[in-house]
Amino acid sequence: MVSLENIYHVCEETVPLYFAMILGYLSIKLWHLFTPEQCAGINKFVSKFSIPLLSFQIISTNNPYQMNTKLVISDALQKALAFFGFLIVTKVCCEKSMDWLITGISVSTLPNTLIVGIPLLRGMYGDEAVRLITQIVVLQSLVWYIILLIFFEYRDLKLISSEVATATQVTQVTDKERNSNSDISGELESGARQTREENPEEKVANKTAPKTTLSFMLNVGKKIAVNPNTYASLAGLVWSLISYRWGIKQPIIVNNSLRILSDGGLGMAMFSIGLFTASQSKIISCGARTAVLSLVLRFILGPSIMAISSYVVGMRGLLLKIAIVQAALPQGIVPFVFAKEYGVHPDILSTGIIVGMIAAVPIALAYYFLIGII
Amino acid sequence: MVSLENIYHVCEETVPLYFAMILGYLSIKLWHLFTPEQCAGINKFVSKFSIPLLSFQIISTNNPYQMNTKLVISDALQKALAFFGFLIVTKVCCEKSMDWLITGISVSTLPNTLIVGIPLLRGMYGDEAVRLITQIVVLQSLVWYIILLIFFEYRDLKLISSEVATATQVTQVTDKERNSNSDISGELESGARQTREENPEEKVANKTAPKTTLSFMLNVGKKIAVNPNTYASLAGLVWSLISYRWGIKQPIIVNNSLRILSDGGLGMAMFSIGLFTASQSKIISCGARTAVLSLVLRFILGPSIMAISSYVVGMRGLLLKIAIVQAALPQGIVPFVFAKEYGVHPDILSTGIIVGMIAAVPIALAYYFLIGII
Repeated sequence: MVSLENIYHVCEETVPLYFAMILGYLSIKLWHLFTPEQCAGINKFVSKFSIPLLSFQIISTNNPYQMNTKLVISDALQKALAFFGFLIVTKVCCEKSMDWLITGISVSTLPNTLIVGIPLLRGMYGDEAVRLITQIVVLQSLVWYIILLIFFEYRDLKLISSEVATATQVTQVTDKERNSNSDISGELESGARQTREENPEEKVANKTAPKTTLSFMLNVGKKIAVNPNTYASLAGLVWSLISYRWGIKQPIIVNNSLRILSDGGLGMAMFSIGLFTASQSKIISCGARTAVLSLVLRFILGPSIMAISSYVVGMRGLLLKIAIVQAALPQGIVPFVFAKEYGVHPDILSTGIIVGMIAAVPIALAYYFLIGII
Repeated sequence: MVSLENIYHVCEETVPLYFAMILGYLSIKLWHLFTPEQCAGINKFVSKFSIPLLSFQIISTNNPYQMNTKLVISDALQKALAFFGFLIVTKVCCEKSMDWLITGISVSTLPNTLIVGIPLLRGMYGDEAVRLITQIVVLQSLVWYIILLIFFEYRDLKLISSEVATATQVTQVTDKERNSNSDISGELESGARQTREENPEEKVANKTAPKTTLSFMLNVGKKIAVNPNTYASLAGLVWSLISYRWGIKQPIIVNNSLRILSDGGLGMAMFSIGLFTASQSKIISCGARTAVLSLVLRFILGPSIMAISSYVVGMRGLLLKIAIVQAALPQGIVPFVFAKEYGVHPDILSTGIIVGMIAAVPIALAYYFLIGII
């Protein structure tokens, strides 16, 4: 059962997060302290320094040789189930199926484990929970976010292909009209023309594939290379592999150097979410129906799939509880950043973040109680 | 004697400060990450949130009922000696004597105790030193900075008075030429005219005094009221008075809420100093001769006066050492902020900060060794 003391512990860990977030919100809405450009400066500091250093700090202290196999499998199973589920549903129902597939997976399976998850679960279940959720942070940073990036790049590739196809059709029409060796220039058109002329029957996308597959892989690589969080996570993993293999500890100087900026990471990140919330013209920017749908995905579907995956894998007791509660956290930030960059429903993800943050503790507590009773 | 282990402890505490500062420096000079406006956003965050919360954190944990009387007296004595010394020297040597008086006092007696002092002295002499330097932080935030502000406002007042006097002379000349009840408008001129007409022989400044004394006090009050650091320091003092009087502890929720932003304060402040350093076109912006003079004041004169004051007051042993070393820290940030605001030699103070930061550890270690040998 959940006692009042438990709830107090949860508050000890989560109220500070809200304090930082509310300060960020008020500094825009009430005090008009920062211009949008100044906010961008703070956000950039958070995304380039605070969060990567925090990721490194967390991941480097995780023992990669003692990962909980069941947790890892159930986490992967949840993602796989969501993938195939959304693949079928979006093929049947949606026009832009790839967009909705990506958004569905992001919203239902990628919660904010690093910033909100660790403090919240520490408040609920103590340090053992931190050890477990850290493993989920590792997987998220180094596996799921990279796969998500590949999805986004693949979507861009399809988009380009269909544009090429459209351009080809346009060219064909133009050609008929002009009856000609055309003078249309431009890389896209000339590429499409060449393809069409060589092999008029074959679909355009297949033919341009070798070129685009290379550019696709290059793009993914480039995106990973410029993302300081991926670097930091990878460095954290490498360090943890070395440190737990040979029992080497970080020198205090190095540890202190990282901590001096990562210690503030949590507060700065929450402050930055507050700035973001205040800068949105509406809290729910994607419309009420879509918002409700996204919240159902985030807070009901996601944890349900995780509960099924975890139970199937044989998880019981504390481990099962932690697996379910972590799946009911607010929307993760990274999928939102990607969504914004690629222009795929960022409004839906921002709703998941903002409403999620506001309701994070009640929702987590609801699960905590429910699971506590069961 | 000072051992290698001692030096290693100092490095453990100070290298992280430099790490944060260098990251800030490189993010401008090498990576061109932030625009000046974005830097302003980060600096504003530091001055409005990080530093005030850090001040509160430090001051609220200081026991105000167990201040070290000798330390408090010697600190005051140092300031008094510097004041009278510079008063005489600047009257004799300088044209703008008030400006040089203020700058002399700022440079020689107001080091960076909060950000650099606490970690550095912890590395040198352990937690007892932190307890003592915290008392100096309290005095600096709540006494010396407010007195410094009064000096600056008094200087502005004198400036206005002399402008009024000049304006009066101009008016007299104009009047002779026009032989008239003049039509010159403007608040300054009309005020001066009125004064002169009523009492032509009396000096202008004395007459305008009642009005300006009020505005003077209002200005000082206003400056204190808008400075979040003064608020935070005062709140810290009030809380410490309550908490140590009745043995009341901060609830963990409140403590965590403050810590979530103040924990990052140190790193953010150093990062911000790095940004500042990178944004200066020259490291020494006040010319080589003035720079050398200011460094002599900061690192030789200041600690010397402190050594004399402390010795006279009867301080010996560890306490004496701490008193001297803390006086040899880099230039404090707040006097620079004031100097910039009032336009009184900010270039000299920025030199004290930048060169001070670069040379802080060698200089502090030099004193540490010297004192260790004696």
